[in-house]
Amino acid sequence: MLLHEDRLFPAEPGVRQIARELYAHVRALPIVSPHGHTQAAWFALNEPFPDPAKLFVQPDHYVYRMLYSQGVSMDDLEIGNAVMKDPRKVWRLFASHYHLFRGTPTRMWLDYAFEVLFGLSERLSTRTADLYYDTIAARLRTPEFLPRALYDRFNMEVLATTDSPLDSLEHHKAIRESGWKARILPTFRPDPVVDPEFAGFSDRIAELGKLTGEDTPTWSGYLNALRKARTRFREFGCTATDHGHLTAQTADLSNAEAEKLYQAVLSGKADAAQQELFRAQMLTEMAAMSVEDGLVMQIHPGSTRNHNRKIYERFGRDTGADIPRPTNYVDALRPLLDRFGNEPGLTIILFTLDESTYSRELAPLAGHYPCLRLGPPWWFFDSPEGMTRFREATTETAGFYNTVGFNDDTRAFLSIPARHDVARRMDCAFLARLVAEHRLEVDEAMEVAHDLAYGLAKKAYRL
Amino acid sequence: MLLHEDRLFPAEPGVRQIARELYAHVRALPIVSPHGHTQAAWFALNEPFPDPAKLFVQPDHYVYRMLYSQGVSMDDLEIGNAVMKDPRKVWRLFASHYHLFRGTPTRMWLDYAFEVLFGLSERLSTRTADLYYDTIAARLRTPEFLPRALYDRFNMEVLATTDSPLDSLEHHKAIRESGWKARILPTFRPDPVVDPEFAGFSDRIAELGKLTGEDTPTWSGYLNALRKARTRFREFGCTATDHGHLTAQTADLSNAEAEKLYQAVLSGKADAAQQELFRAQMLTEMAAMSVEDGLVMQIHPGSTRNHNRKIYERFGRDTGADIPRPTNYVDALRPLLDRFGNEPGLTIILFTLDESTYSRELAPLAGHYPCLRLGPPWWFFDSPEGMTRFREATTETAGFYNTVGFNDDTRAFLSIPARHDVARRMDCAFLARLVAEHRLEVDEAMEVAHDLAYGLAKKAYRL
Amino acid sequence: MLLHEDRLFPAEPGVRQIARELYAHVRALPIVSPHGHTQAAWFALNEPFPDPAKLFVQPDHYVYRMLYSQGVSMDDLEIGNAVMKDPRKVWRLFASHYHLFRGTPTRMWLDYAFEVLFGLSERLSTRTADLYYDTIAARLRTPEFLPRALYDRFNMEVLATTDSPLDSLEHHKAIRESGWKARILPTFRPDPVVDPEFAGFSDRIAELGKLTGEDTPTWSGYLNALRKARTRFREFGCTATDHGHLTAQTADLSNAEAEKLYQAVLSGKADAAQQELFRAQMLTEMAAMSVEDGLVMQIHPGSTRNHNRKIYERFGRDTGADIPRPTNYVDALRPLLDRFGNEPGLTIILFTLDESTYSRELAPLAGHYPCLRLGPPWWFFDSPEGMTRFREATTETAGFYNTVGFNDDTRAFLSIPARHDVARRMDCAFLARLVAEHRLEVDEAMEVAHDLAYGLAKKAYRL
Repeated sequence: MLLHEDRLFPAEPGVRQIARELYAHVRALPIVSPHGHTQAAWFALNEPFPDPAKLFVQPDHYVYRMLYSQGVSMDDLEIGNAVMKDPRKVWRLFASHYHLFRGTPTRMWLDYAFEVLFGLSERLSTRTADLYYDTIAARLRTPEFLPRALYDRFNMEVLATTDSPLDSLEHHKAIRESGWKARILPTFRPDPVVDPEFAGFSDRIAELGKLTGEDTPTWSGYLNALRKARTRFREFGCTATDHGHLTAQTADLSNAEAEKLYQAVLSGKADAAQQELFRAQMLTEMAAMSVEDGLVMQIHPGSTRNHNRKIYERFGRDTGADIPRPTNYVDALRPLLDRFGNEPGLTIILFTLDESTYSRELAPLAGHYPCLRLGPPWWFFDSPEGMTRFREATTETAGFYNTVGFNDDTRAFLSIPARHDVARRMDCAFLARLVAEHRLEVDEAMEVAHDLAYGLAKKAYRL
Repeated sequence: MLLHEDRLFPAEPGVRQIARELYAHVRALPIVSPHGHTQAAWFALNEPFPDPAKLFVQPDHYVYRMLYSQGVSMDDLEIGNAVMKDPRKVWRLFASHYHLFRGTPTRMWLDYAFEVLFGLSERLSTRTADLYYDTIAARLRTPEFLPRALYDRFNMEVLATTDSPLDSLEHHKAIRESGWKARILPTFRPDPVVDPEFAGFSDRIAELGKLTGEDTPTWSGYLNALRKARTRFREFGCTATDHGHLTAQTADLSNAEAEKLYQAVLSGKADAAQQELFRAQMLTEMAAMSVEDGLVMQIHPGSTRNHNRKIYERFGRDTGADIPRPTNYVDALRPLLDRFGNEPGLTIILFTLDESTYSRELAPLAGHYPCLRLGPPWWFFDSPEGMTRFREATTETAGFYNTVGFNDDTRAFLSIPARHDVARRMDCAFLARLVAEHRLEVDEAMEVAHDLAYGLAKKAYRL
Repeated sequence: MLLHEDRLFPAEPGVRQIARELYAHVRALPIVSPHGHTQAAWFALNEPFPDPAKLFVQPDHYVYRMLYSQGVSMDDLEIGNAVMKDPRKVWRLFASHYHLFRGTPTRMWLDYAFEVLFGLSERLSTRTADLYYDTIAARLRTPEFLPRALYDRFNMEVLATTDSPLDSLEHHKAIRESGWKARILPTFRPDPVVDPEFAGFSDRIAELGKLTGEDTPTWSGYLNALRKARTRFREFGCTATDHGHLTAQTADLSNAEAEKLYQAVLSGKADAAQQELFRAQMLTEMAAMSVEDGLVMQIHPGSTRNHNRKIYERFGRDTGADIPRPTNYVDALRPLLDRFGNEPGLTIILFTLDESTYSRELAPLAGHYPCLRLGPPWWFFDSPEGMTRFREATTETAGFYNTVGFNDDTRAFLSIPARHDVARRMDCAFLARLVAEHRLEVDEAMEVAHDLAYGLAKKAYRL
C-alpha cells in the first residue's frame, strides 16, 4: 500500500480523531478547480493519454527539475521531444531516482495516482519500474482512462483552464457543442498582450487587433480590443482573469501618460522601467474592466521566469527554472487600491511566492480591503508544510473567509484529485488542532472545512 | 460555555499537563500593563461605559476592519459617529457576522469578556444578539462595571497610557488627586512633534513652545522644550517613551546639520527624504535624553499608516487601514547604536511588524547590545500563532531575558485580562514543550513563566 | 542528570518511539565535520587545554555575547586577555548568569560537555561554580583530555579547519608527519586576499605574490597566485573553499574590465561599489577554478561583521557583534550561474542568515541547478528550532538530497559531539513526524537519517 488512510493527519490521537471526522465530512465533495493549466483540447478531442513517461515525466516540471538538480540530463529525459524515442528508458531513469522525492508533495501526488488510478501498491523503484510502466500503459488504452471519463470519475464540478486572449477557444467551443455536460471554462490571461517583455509583443498586439477588429495601434483601440476579448471569454463561461507579472506593481497614470507609454512599448523602444510601468498600469486597467464586467482578477506575481539561461535557450519557457523573488504588496498595490480598493463589485485574489508577506502584508491587506482575497499557497508552497504555514500566518488577521479555498494550478490532470485531497486533509488537520486547543468548536470547524473545500472557491470565483 | 479551561494548551496530554501546572503558577499574578491606549479620562471621571456597540464595535479596529473586509459598510457600523443612532442595529450587524472571527484572537478576547465579565455562555449569533445586547447593557449600568471597579477586579498593578507631549495630563492629575490608589501612568509619545508628516506640524511645535516657555523656533530651544515635556511626564510617574515611525531609521548628525535640517522641516519645505532624516535624527536625540533622564525607549516601526486613502479622508487615522511594511533594523539602528549602544543606563525596546526580522536581525541585536530588548509580538502578531513564532524565532539567540514580557497595547479596556491570559497561556504552552522535550527542567520553566508574566515587564519598564 | 536520553524528541509517544528507533540507527556513526574553525595547532602540538574559563568562556562568542547583552562587561570576562588574570572569577561570573541560556542551544552544548566529558550531573549555578571549575580543571590535565585523545574519543572520521591562503599550513604538515592517523584537512578561505575591505589588503596580496612566486600586481599573476595557493591546499587534502562575503553578489566581467577593477582595488582607491563588484567577480573566478580543480565552493553570505563599532575598536573581529542582514540570491547568483550553473563537475554549497530565503529562493535554486546544494542551518540557526524550520521550508521543494548533512562550524572543539548529536536528533525528530503522518515509510526514513548524519556530508564535500 502506498497510501495510508490517516496520511497527513496529526499524530496525536485526539487531534487525529477530530481531523478524521472533519475530513469524513468533506472528502467526497465535488472538486471545484477554478485555476489550472490543463488543456481544453484533451476534453474536446477525448483521445487517450500517451505512455507513462509522456504522461508523468515529460510535462511535469516538478518532476524533472528535481531529477535535473541531481545531475540527470534533460536530454536523457527527452524533455522537449514531440515524440519520445524510448519512453520506457525515460521511465526507468525516473524510477531509479524516485528516492529523491522523499518528503516532497510530488511524491504524494504520484503515489496517489499510482495507487488510486492504476491500482499499484508496491513502491516505484528500479525493480518495479517495468511493472509500473506496463500497468499504466495498459490502463491508458482503456475507455475508463479517456479524459472525459476521468473528469467524471474525479467528481469534478467545474474546471478552469488558462488561456491567451489570442486563443481561438475552439476546444472550449467544441466541448460546448459536443453535448457533454461538463463545465470547463476558460480563464483570461492577457500576459502575452500586456507584458512588453514577451517576445513578439507588437506582433501579438497586431493579431489582437485583427481578431477584435479594433484599432490597436491606438491606446483606446487597444483597450477596446481587450474589452472585446474579455467579452468573448465571458461568452464561454469565463469568470476570472489571471496576471503573472514579475512584481505586484500597479500604477494609475493619466490617460495622456498611459497613451504615451503605450506608444513607447509598442515601438519596442521602451526601457525596462517603462515596461514595468506599463505592466503596472495594465493591472489597473484590468481592474477597471473587472469593475465593468465582473470578472474576478487573480494576481500571481513574484516569479523570476527562465532563470537558467542555457535551459531557456535550449528548451524554452516553463522548464523548471523559474525562481521566486522578494515581492512587495503594501506599496505596489496602492495605486490600484487608491482607485478601486473600496469598489463593492470587485474581487482581486492575491497570490505569492514570498511567504514573508503572508503575515506582514497579505493578511493585513485582505483583512481590510473589501475587494481583496487571498489565494491558496501557490507553486512551491502547494504542499503540506506550505499549507500549514499559510493558515498559521494568515488566519489570525484575515480569518478564513478572506481566503478562497484551493487551487490545484496544475498541468498534470491526473494529479488533480490527489492535490485536492492533500488540501482537504491539511485544512482538516489545521482545524482539528484549533478544536483540540479549544480555539474553535467542532460544529464551526465542520462548517469551515466545508467552505474551504467547496464553498469559498465557488463564491470567490463566482462559479 | 465559551471558554474551555485548557484552551490554547497543546493537545498532547503530557505536554498539556505541564502547561497546566505552569499556568496555575502564573494565572493569578497581578497585571502589569506597560504599554497601551486606554484613556486616563475613563479612570479620572469613572463614568459608566456606554452601550455594547459603542464599547465593543465602534472603537475596536480589529473588529470593524474584519467586517469591512467582507463588505459591511463603515456607515452601517456607525464608525465615527459621536452618538450612535441605533446601537442595537449595529450590534445585530456585528452578531450576524461573528463567524468571520473564527480562528482569530479577536474572537478569543471577545468570548472571554462575554463569559467572564458578562456571564454569557451561549455563542454570539443572530439568534443571541439581543440577549447579548440586553445583558451587556444592563451590567454596564451597575457600579461593578465602572472603570475603577474593573481596574481593581482585573487585578492590575500598573497601567500605562500613551500621550502626546502636548497633552495637559489633566486626567492623570485628577486620578492622583482623587486619592484612588491605582497606578496609572502616562507614556511620552512625541510623534506629533517629531514627525514632520503629521498635519499641522509647525503649529504643534509652536504649541509645544508655549507650553514649555522655550524658544522652539531654534533647534536648541526645541530640544529643551522636549526635555521639559519629558520632565513633566516623569512627574506623573512616566517611565517610558514610545516612537511610532514608518521605519527604524536613526541618524547621528552634527549639531549644525541637525539645526539646518530642523529649520527645513519647520518651514514645511522639507522633502520626504529630509522628513525621514529628521525622524531618524530625533530617535537618536530621544536616546540621548533617555541616557540623561532614564526613560525607557520603545520603538514601534514599520506601519504604513492610513493605507486606504478614501477611508482616511472620510474617517481619519486609526481606522483599521494600517498595513505593515518590510523593516530593516541592522543598518537603520546603527547610527544610534554607534553612539549609545553600549551605554549602561539605556534601555531600548524594539517592536516589529515584519516577522522575518525576528531571527535575522532582532534576536541577534538584542542578544548582543546591552541597551536592546525585544518587545512582545505586536498588533497583527498579538495572537497564539504570533506568540509561538516569536518565541521559536528569538529564544535560541536572545534567550528569554532579553525580552520584556507582555504588552496588551489595546484601546479596548475590557480586553486587557483576556489578552494577558492568552499571553500567559501561550508562554506556558511554549515552556511546556521545552520541558516535555527535555530542553528545560520544570523548576526553571516555573521561574521563566513567572518572569514572562510579571517580572520582566516590571524590570524592563522600570516600574 | 543534565541530559535526558529522549531530549529533543517530540513529546507524542508514538512519534517519539519512531524518533528513538531512527536515532538508534545513527547515533554512533562517525563524525564527519567538513566545515569548522578548530585549530590545526591543537592537534599538531597536542598540548592540554588550559583552564575552564579559557576553554568555555573566552573563545566562545555564543557565550559571552549573551552575557554582554545583559550588562556583564567584556573586561570582567577578560575577553582578549592572552593570559587570564583570574579565570576562577570569570568562571563564577559565567556560572552566576547561567540562567540566561535557558532555551538556547548554547545551554545544550555546554550541558552535554559538562555531563558526557566531565561527569558533572548537577546544574551549573553560583553554588556549583567551584565544583565545576575544579572538576574540569583537574580532568584537563589528564592524558584523556589531550586534543588527539578527544578526537579519537569523539569518533571523528574527518575534520576540516578553515585557513587563509597565506597560512603556512605548518600545523597540518606536522600532523601528517607525526604519523597520527587522523584526517584533519584545511579549507581554502581566501577572504583576506579577495575582499578589499580587509585591512592591509594590498600588503596581503604582496605576501601572496611572495609565497607563490607570482606577479600579483597583474590580474593574471594574481589569479595564478590563487591557483597555486589552491594547489598547495589540495596537497594537504583540502577539498573545499569557503567565502564569507557581505552579500551573495556575483559578477561576470570581461577580462579587461576585471583587470581594470583589480588595479582599482589594489590601489586602495576603489569605492564601496567597486569593492563589492570585485568580491562579486572573485566568486565567479573561484567557481572557474573549482571547475578546473574540483574544490567544492561554500558561500556564507549575509553577515554584517563588526556591527558594534566600540567593541570592534577595542576587541577586534569575531567578538559576538556580527548581525545578519537581508540577503538576495535569486539575482545575486545569476551571473555566476549563467556561466557555470549547468557545469557537471561543480558543487556550490549555499548558506544563509536570512531564513526568509529558504523557501523563496534557496530551495527553488537548489531544486533546479545541478551545481547547487543547501548547507545546513548556520550560526544563529544551528539550533533545534532553526533546524526544524530549515527542513520544513526546504524539503518539499529541494528534497533531502540537495542538502549536505551537518556542519558544526565551531571554534569550540569540545562542543563538536554535542552539536552533531543535536543535529542527528533533530533530523530524526523531523523524519519521525513524516513517518507518523504517513508521508514517508520507516525504511526510507532509516536510509535518509543515515544519509543526513553521514553519507551526504562525505558525498557533497568529496571526502
